[in-house]
Order: sequence, then structure tokens, then C-alpha cells
Amino acid sequence: MTPLLLAATSVLLVTLDTTRADHLGCYGDRRAATPAIDALAASGQRPAHNVRVLLDGEEEAGSRGLLSSLKKYQEKYRADMMLVLDGPLHSSGKPTLAFGARGIVTLDITVFGPKFALHSGHYGNWAPNPAMDLMQLMASMKDENGRVTVEGFYDDVPAFTAEEKRIMASVPDNPKELMQFLGIARTDKVGGSLQEALQYPSLNIRGLRSAYIGAEARTVIPESAIASIDIRLVKETDPDRMIRRVRDHIRKQGYQVVDKPPDDAMRAKYPRIAMLSSGSGGATFTGTKAYRTEMNHPLSIALTNIIQRTWNEPPVRIRTMGGTVPMAPFAEMFGFPVISIPVVNFDNNQHSENENLRLENLWKAIVTFADVLRM
Amino acid sequence: MTPLLLAATSVLLVTLDTTRADHLGCYGDRRAATPAIDALAASGQRPAHNVRVLLDGEEEAGSRGLLSSLKKYQEKYRADMMLVLDGPLHSSGKPTLAFGARGIVTLDITVFGPKFALHSGHYGNWAPNPAMDLMQLMASMKDENGRVTVEGFYDDVPAFTAEEKRIMASVPDNPKELMQFLGIARTDKVGGSLQEALQYPSLNIRGLRSAYIGAEARTVIPESAIASIDIRLVKETDPDRMIRRVRDHIRKQGYQVVDKPPDDAMRAKYPRIAMLSSGSGGATFTGTKAYRTEMNHPLSIALTNIIQRTWNEPPVRIRTMGGTVPMAPFAEMFGFPVISIPVVNFDNNQHSENENLRLENLWKAIVTFADVLRM
Repeated sequence: MTPLLLAATSVLLVTLDTTRADHLGCYGDRRAATPAIDALAASGQRPAHNVRVLLDGEEEAGSRGLLSSLKKYQEKYRADMMLVLDGPLHSSGKPTLAFGARGIVTLDITVFGPKFALHSGHYGNWAPNPAMDLMQLMASMKDENGRVTVEGFYDDVPAFTAEEKRIMASVPDNPKELMQFLGIARTDKVGGSLQEALQYPSLNIRGLRSAYIGAEARTVIPESAIASIDIRLVKETDPDRMIRRVRDHIRKQGYQVVDKPPDDAMRAKYPRIAMLSSGSGGATFTGTKAYRTEMNHPLSIALTNIIQRTWNEPPVRIRTMGGTVPMAPFAEMFGFPVISIPVVNFDNNQHSENENLRLENLWKAIVTFADVLRM
Repeated sequence: MTPLLLAATSVLLVTLDTTRADHLGCYGDRRAATPAIDALAASGQRPAHNVRVLLDGEEEAGSRGLLSSLKKYQEKYRADMMLVLDGPLHSSGKPTLAFGARGIVTLDITVFGPKFALHSGHYGNWAPNPAMDLMQLMASMKDENGRVTVEGFYDDVPAFTAEEKRIMASVPDNPKELMQFLGIARTDKVGGSLQEALQYPSLNIRGLRSAYIGAEARTVIPESAIASIDIRLVKETDPDRMIRRVRDHIRKQGYQVVDKPPDDAMRAKYPRIAMLSSGSGGATFTGTKAYRTEMNHPLSIALTNIIQRTWNEPPVRIRTMGGTVPMAPFAEMFGFPVISIPVVNFDNNQHSENENLRLENLWKAIVTFADVLRM
């Protein structure tokens, strides 16, 4: 009864953030989990496995409760595989499996100028401008094609196998259509396609701030300038190591790197000072690691076959999704493979206004989950 | 009676922004103008010249009233020289003359990314980030020594004469002390000294904005990034020409330069789009030009001699002050020389909290102005 699932005896189903009834699109997938079990019962069938359903009410707030329970309830978490119910189908609307998700670590870089904002007339051409320093520092981190030039940034990422390249190339992305939808006429060139780009760590400026702009602008040399960064991680890139590489890079540009604002003695000593702090403000960088189950893992192949049989077409196989799901701590602690089964519609406006769920996707999700559990 | 002032028959005294009684430091100089005339009368003397005193109540708000009156009252403005009462003495506290002031033109540069902020996980490494584009664009405008690399930026500035270099070198600046006061351990290297730096146009980032930072940061690829810029001008650098040079530079970096946000067709056509707008938001750049009277002009020499005789020491001679005073329209329209006689204390906290005026400076200002008017 269970050959396709490798005679697994226990499946941990994780359904994330079930608490917000108004977030249809983002959480519709989780509503299909228990109905799938009910549906099996109603048709006189039973799951082929022991199933544990885990509901996380805090995914959008860091999943602290879930993660802190790992040790405490480790006996209850033991399973042969972990299936994650999260995220939308591929934009083509075809059945989809995702074998991994990127992790993330965030940091703020603050560059210091004079102790107080200066009249740009009295001192312009003489007192260094921290906004310009930040520009030159950040510009040194990427080339014009969007490739990160921080030493070693991509070093940990192994080359793709021919099979992986083939599966990624088979994902029916339509870059032209997507570019038109986003209003962009060029793309960064990390990897040969969108799917390949998501297999690499990224360095993204998520925010900038220095003094004032527009009607509020004052003609000053600002006292500081801040860039808020996120680094998306892949399975092979450790958050601490990536932060260290960025820190080393900043040092190589002539900066003294500090973890709190400089005092007068430091200001007198160092021509360039940059403060690194975590995205949440502290000096400790706590990232969320990435996870990935290889696409040629027996469970990956088994699930692919189930989806194909159910919907009569091969699923779109996503090697690593771009976004972040906090599954790595489970995989590391318990050693089981983790795979995501996304089911909701791509255009669900996740996290935004008019979030929505197509009923067709909800019904199909129940069928998909029921088939996965019974086979 | 008037040999030193070249038999000038009419002096226009301009005292700026007299309206704000709480701004002691910034406006103390203007309070000495009419008392100087009263003092001459009280001691049985009279000014050696016809004197017209012009009070501008809007200097900190653009002097629109003053400038719009130029044509209307041009007969009343005719004079042989114009003396400007504005700004502090040199930081050494010595008597000071300033023969010019820089002008200014402001602009905002907006670089566009996707039509709406994107999830940095789903699209990071693929959708270009406008904050990084802005960083690379702005970084291309200056070298690591703060010298502007925009083509032709310094071309209009003539070399200093040996005499000018000598006078600038005689200004008793103390760069070490000033650097300590400002909390900086290096300076930009435009010109060989602070005084020389102020004789060149400057390009200053006065503000930066893109998405959010710190606790408000969201992990997005922002939809745009803005740098607010001021360009300080010297006498030889025309505001329109400088804006054109910056625009040409941006084009050379591969940008389509526009004056309003791009529509879908433009987005589809151009890989890089930058919008240039004036600092006040419109597409018209209205700068304030610089002015300067040569230090070897007979009036410059005459005023230098008067100050020397009054205070028994040579004045500090500032070729061009870094800040901006709207005198160029007068000099251009009427052709007379314009010279500034600063008198208030350097540490007056101009435009800031605890603005102040030392009474010693007020009394000495009355003496200075009276001597200038009677000789």
C-alpha cells in the first residue's frame, strides 16, 4: 500500500500560519490538509501512514514558538518525511513541487560622516559625505549585471548536474511576459534563467536612508547614511559565513567595521567607519537557513510520480524557491527529507491587498493531499 | 574725503532677513547698519557717500520679493558698489572680508525598478534593484578623493593667480582643529586647502530615500530610489550648464533620462530610466548664481585698507565663501562690484538651536560699518 512513499511510516504535515482568516491566498493551502484526511475517511479509505499535522500560528512573525518547541517535543516530531503546505503553484498554474526554499539573513550598514549635519556650502568639497561613501561602498559589492563581487559569495554553491539543469530548464517560466508584468526591460544575470538565479545567494538593498529628500530636503552634508540589506541563502551558504564575507569586503574598502556608533577617539583615528548591525538592530545576526531535498532523492521521485498520476501531467519541479520557509531547523535536527507541495493560485496577492484563493485550487489541493497520503 | 572708496557716490547696503528677532547670530550683523549711520551723526560726521539701505525679509525663503523688485525699482538700485552685511567672521575671530559667495542649484535623481516593490526572495538575483542602480550611478560621479568625475565639471574654473593663491594661503584656517571639531579623519581633496576647495563647484548628496530601513524594513526589491543633490556653483559655472553636464553623465551610464515617471511603453523600451527633477519638484531648474569681485579690484583693495586701519591688522580675505547669498542678479543687472563684510561671531549656531550673538561683535560691527561709510 505504500511503495511509492518508501514504506514511510510517519509523515509530518506542516501547515503554516493558520491564524489569519482574512489571508485567503496565503493560507488556503493549509485549509486543505484536514479535509483531505476527512475525504479519505468519507470514501472508506485511510492514510497509508501515520500523519502528524503541525499548525504554526506565527510564521509571519518568526515562528519563535514553533522553533523553541523543537527540542521540547522532539519525540513527537520524529517522522520519515516532512511535507510543507505553503506557497503558490508555478505561475503556469500547473501542479507543482518545490524541493527547497532559500534562507535569509538581514543586516544594516551605517556609514558615518561628520558628527552633525553640516552646511553643504561651508563644507562641500572638503568634509566627506557619508551618503556618497555608502554609494561607493555598496556599488563595490555588485557588477553592472547584478552579480555580487564580494569575494567568495558564490563559492559554496556547487555546479548543477546535467539532470538538474534539464529539470530547471523544463520549468515553463515565461521571462518576457514576467518582465512586461513587472515593468522591467532587463534582468540581473546570476545564473542563466530565473530558476537558476534562485539557486544562488542574493544580496539585496531593501532600503536606503540619509537625511531628507524632496520638499523636506535641506542643503546639508548628512551625518550618516544607512543601507538595509537582505542576503538570501541557499542550502550550502551558511548565514554567519556570508555575514563574515560582507564584513571582510567592507574592511577591504578601507573601512573600520564597528558594532556601535563611533566615539570621538574612533572618529579621530579612522578615515572611514561603517557600523554593521542585524536587521533587527542588534549586533547578533540570526539568519534562517535554507533547505533543499535533492530532486533525485527517492521521496522526490515518489512524490513526482504521485502528482503525475493524479493530474495526468508531470509537476513543475522547483529545485529551490526564492522565498524563505523556516524548515531547515527540522531537517537538521531530525534528518528527514522536506518537500513543499504548493497548491494555491499564483495570482493570490499574497501579503498584499485583495488577497484571494480560487476555489478550484482549494478543491484540487484536497485531492492532491488525499492522494499523497493514501499512496 | 572719499579717495579710498574711489569717489563712489552711492553705496547700496544690503542687510538680509531682518524679520526674525529670535535669530540673533544670523541677523546681528544687520542690526549694526543703521546704528553706524546714527553713530556718525552723533559724532558730528556724515557718510561720505549716498547710502541706500535695503532690508530683505525673505532671504531664508528665496528672496522672491527682493528679486522681483529688481526691474521695477532699477532706478533706485543704481549705485557704485554694493556691500552685503551677512555671515560670520572667519573662525579665528579676525576682521574679515568676503569677495564672493557660491551659488546653488538643486536636483533630485529618481531611478526606477519594477512597477511595484517585489518580494526579494522570489525575484532577488533576477529583477534589478533600483537602489543598487542608484548606488552605481552616483558612485560614478565622484572618485575616492571626493573629486567630481562628471565630464567638464571643473572646466570653467580658471587657475588661481599666484597672488590669489598667496591670499588664500594666508587665511588662518586650522584644518586639524576643524577636523577634530567635526569628528572626521579625512577630507575630500578638491583644491589644496579648505579655501581652495570653496573656489570650485561641489556636488553633494543631501538626502537618500528608498523603501524602508531598520525596524520598518521589509524584504523587498524597492520600486524606486531617490538621491537629492545640491550643486554649489562658483562665478564661472552656470547652473544650466552644470545641470546639463550631470544629465549627460547619467545618459553616458546607459540611462534614459526623463522628467516624469515612465509609463509601460517606456519601461518596456529602456533598461535603465532616471528621472531628473528640480529640488522643489518641478522640471525647471532655477539656480542661484554665484558672485565674486576680484580681490585686486580697486574697491577690494580700498576696503581691505579701511579694515586694516580701523582694527590695526589686515583682514582675513575670503575669495569665495562656501555658502550662498542671492547677490548675482544685482551684480549682473547693475554691473557694480559686490563685497561682503561679515561681522558676527563664528560660533553663533546659525540656523540652529541656541543661536547667539556676542555683544562685542555687535559693537565692533557698528565701528566697522561707520568707518567704511565715512572713508
